[in-house]
Amino acid sequence: MSKDHALREDNYSQWYNDIVVKADLAENSAVRGCMVIKPYGYAIWEKMQQALDKMFKDTGHVNAYFPLFIPKSFLSKEAAHIEGFAKECAIVTHYRLKKSPDGKGVIVDPEAKLEEELIVRPTSETIIWHTYKGWIQSYRDLPLLINQWANVVRWEMRTRLFLRTAEFLWQEGHTAHATSEEAKIETEKMLEVYADFAENWMAIPVIKGVKTESERFAGAIDTYCIEALMQDGKALQAGTSHFLGQNFAKAFDVKYTNKEGKQDFVWATSWGVSTRLMGALIMSHSDDKGLVIPPKLAPFQVVIVPIYRSAEEYSTVCEAGKAIKKDLERIGISVKLDDRDTHKPGFKFAEHEYRGVPVRIAIGPRDIENGTVEIARRDTLEKETLRLQDLPIKILHLLENIQKNLYTRALQFRELNTHRADSWEEFINLLDEPGGFIYAHWDGTAETEAKIKELTKATIRCIPLGNKLEKGKCILTGNPSEQYVVFARAY
Amino acid sequence: MSKDHALREDNYSQWYNDIVVKADLAENSAVRGCMVIKPYGYAIWEKMQQALDKMFKDTGHVNAYFPLFIPKSFLSKEAAHIEGFAKECAIVTHYRLKKSPDGKGVIVDPEAKLEEELIVRPTSETIIWHTYKGWIQSYRDLPLLINQWANVVRWEMRTRLFLRTAEFLWQEGHTAHATSEEAKIETEKMLEVYADFAENWMAIPVIKGVKTESERFAGAIDTYCIEALMQDGKALQAGTSHFLGQNFAKAFDVKYTNKEGKQDFVWATSWGVSTRLMGALIMSHSDDKGLVIPPKLAPFQVVIVPIYRSAEEYSTVCEAGKAIKKDLERIGISVKLDDRDTHKPGFKFAEHEYRGVPVRIAIGPRDIENGTVEIARRDTLEKETLRLQDLPIKILHLLENIQKNLYTRALQFRELNTHRADSWEEFINLLDEPGGFIYAHWDGTAETEAKIKELTKATIRCIPLGNKLEKGKCILTGNPSEQYVVFARAY
Repeated sequence: MSKDHALREDNYSQWYNDIVVKADLAENSAVRGCMVIKPYGYAIWEKMQQALDKMFKDTGHVNAYFPLFIPKSFLSKEAAHIEGFAKECAIVTHYRLKKSPDGKGVIVDPEAKLEEELIVRPTSETIIWHTYKGWIQSYRDLPLLINQWANVVRWEMRTRLFLRTAEFLWQEGHTAHATSEEAKIETEKMLEVYADFAENWMAIPVIKGVKTESERFAGAIDTYCIEALMQDGKALQAGTSHFLGQNFAKAFDVKYTNKEGKQDFVWATSWGVSTRLMGALIMSHSDDKGLVIPPKLAPFQVVIVPIYRSAEEYSTVCEAGKAIKKDLERIGISVKLDDRDTHKPGFKFAEHEYRGVPVRIAIGPRDIENGTVEIARRDTLEKETLRLQDLPIKILHLLENIQKNLYTRALQFRELNTHRADSWEEFINLLDEPGGFIYAHWDGTAETEAKIKELTKATIRCIPLGNKLEKGKCILTGNPSEQYVVFARAY
Repeated sequence: MSKDHALREDNYSQWYNDIVVKADLAENSAVRGCMVIKPYGYAIWEKMQQALDKMFKDTGHVNAYFPLFIPKSFLSKEAAHIEGFAKECAIVTHYRLKKSPDGKGVIVDPEAKLEEELIVRPTSETIIWHTYKGWIQSYRDLPLLINQWANVVRWEMRTRLFLRTAEFLWQEGHTAHATSEEAKIETEKMLEVYADFAENWMAIPVIKGVKTESERFAGAIDTYCIEALMQDGKALQAGTSHFLGQNFAKAFDVKYTNKEGKQDFVWATSWGVSTRLMGALIMSHSDDKGLVIPPKLAPFQVVIVPIYRSAEEYSTVCEAGKAIKKDLERIGISVKLDDRDTHKPGFKFAEHEYRGVPVRIAIGPRDIENGTVEIARRDTLEKETLRLQDLPIKILHLLENIQKNLYTRALQFRELNTHRADSWEEFINLLDEPGGFIYAHWDGTAETEAKIKELTKATIRCIPLGNKLEKGKCILTGNPSEQYVVFARAY
């Protein structure tokens, strides 16, 4: 691995892009705004999917699959929803190509125009609630707890790999309930699942909160979110869970008969996380030496690099490497033995370090003699010599330790970069340096929120759950405020 | 479950559709030709995915993700490919909607027209080979063994749930190799993987073979396939593996430098199976009582139905049911305890039978007294009384037995419905009754193949791998033939 990548302090945005591209996570494609997720990046995404999918199933959800396309008219059925999603979308208008008159290429066949245009789903509330109408008649059909893993498209003008792409992969949960209370409990339960996943798998501490009205999902009564802090002091919304009330049930006329025989509209939630989490993962833990991956999400947790000079040595150390691999795999550790004879150990060290493999084991002929190996942990870059016989249990503990350390480090960083601002001046100063989360009083109006955003590019990330009520004065208007809310500049 | 479903002999096509819809596997959506895969159907598809994904990884492949959209011009780059795929596809021409003048709905914003139209992928060779150009420079970058799980769209005019839908889910493998030999070995290896999956997971015997020129994938040098026989005597192509030669490498200018420093075009394969397999699964094993699922692919392998009269009995038998569930799960059997108090046992029996659960356990107060349960297997509908203490091991064996029995039954059916035809008359007679696979001589020309298809709707399913050479006369033209090939009417 050459040193041709940017450093955080020089160019944070380039540093991020370098890691994504040069650690082989993703790259831009020939299609504007769409990315190719490369095998190493996709392997991390698969780990995320597996963990989340299990959490969804453990909380009673099942998976299903709904169409990629949404009839144009569906989008207009929920008034707020159309405002949020109609602006930027991919529209299918035709269904056939034909040879161009010059015979060299193809053109759209004007005869093959759709009667009603189809929208490539930007989110699936409309098509799903249209479907639920056929599935829900009585209270016996409720709750309906469904999740979908899918690709969605939003025609973003400015895109960045993983953080904002025209097409992205995600999961979207869509649940239907008999009562408002049940739907609210579900909304909060899934927020907890997301927070649990962020903290215990991604090693990223998050603030759980509720969005202000202007930051709500289009069509929601309440949007809950988890907010994480990146190393450049900007916030990133890592997941959302929406209480949709009866908005979609009314738009698609989904009623159920309760135990008393009375009809009522159904209550709804939706919730999602996307490949954007990859961006959060990268920006939370990585350093100037490249990517750092928490062990629980690493495609392989340990890489073994054989050190050798001759062909005979190569064969001996590879044999020893294989034995170690087997020992580690036996206790559930994932291991790659990098036995390529086309690359030198130094190259491999740099490559795996840049790609964020949690633990590296180097083994050479002298190690075999001594019954030891040299290990290096990616998070602190510390090295240590371990006895072969202690290896499996020591590596197991080391991986746990790295997972914890990454979380603690991220938490410390967030604590260092979380401040209170009790005046406009303080607010402005903190925002510019060091950035981070700023707790400040706000008068509760959308106008003030918009004005602050216009003046500073900072937005209200959320009103934290269980927030203490503390009277104060709005930093912008001086009007009375009931509580501190969390501001930040954000991705 | 009511008896309101069709029987095979009365209306095979309706019988199939009833199972798909009434066993809650899938349904038509609001979008023409696109289906909704319901949770129970999706759970079977997930089992298939998991098994296949493991097989792909065990043979050295990794997953990645490529864009949903393909620039129109890409499709024209490989001459044969465009012929096959340009006809029927979804075309994105615009990227924004705006409010309609009457303010009530939305219209396509004519200002937001794409410079180059985008095609929703019907298959991804073009976008992937465009990407591979950036990934492959030298022999060190080869082989590239990548798979993608994705949705694809082909604008089919006549659609049937699972068997032929406009949008479907699939996996597509796309590999790049240094030599023609390696690519051919890969093509055949993946055909073996598909055959292994079909036979050992789906319990469906398949014929492995190679397609004739006219049935080849658009852009392939050779298309290998597995062909299965459905209960109505029609064949179903269950998977294909293509040797693409250097066609796509040439179209997208993908060269590599070999060990001697010389440049050459890369060799390619692609291979895929889709949600069409769900159709094959249903039509291979199901009967007039509904769906039959092989235990290895069943969302749950055992359902426990409590039998009770009073609330007290309910609580006792549910406790016993929970204990059985735990015992079975301990040895890896998946179990559902159907403790709904809103439905009677008879209803549950019929429902689970129709949904194809491999084994049903009924437990009532008398069973508890006797230390027994009544079990029923779905494949033969046989019932048996078992002692509680023997249950786990007996059920384990029973599930293995059902898996084997389904395969054996399907194989016997295929053998009974495979014939040789040595004359045109024989061929015609066999085709009409009983149908099935017909081995017949063919003179090897595309004209004869087309004529036979025109006259009989039968196609050459494949030339079986390892086929014996046996001289004979073409059933249509009487011209000399080297071997029997497999004909059938097909889905």
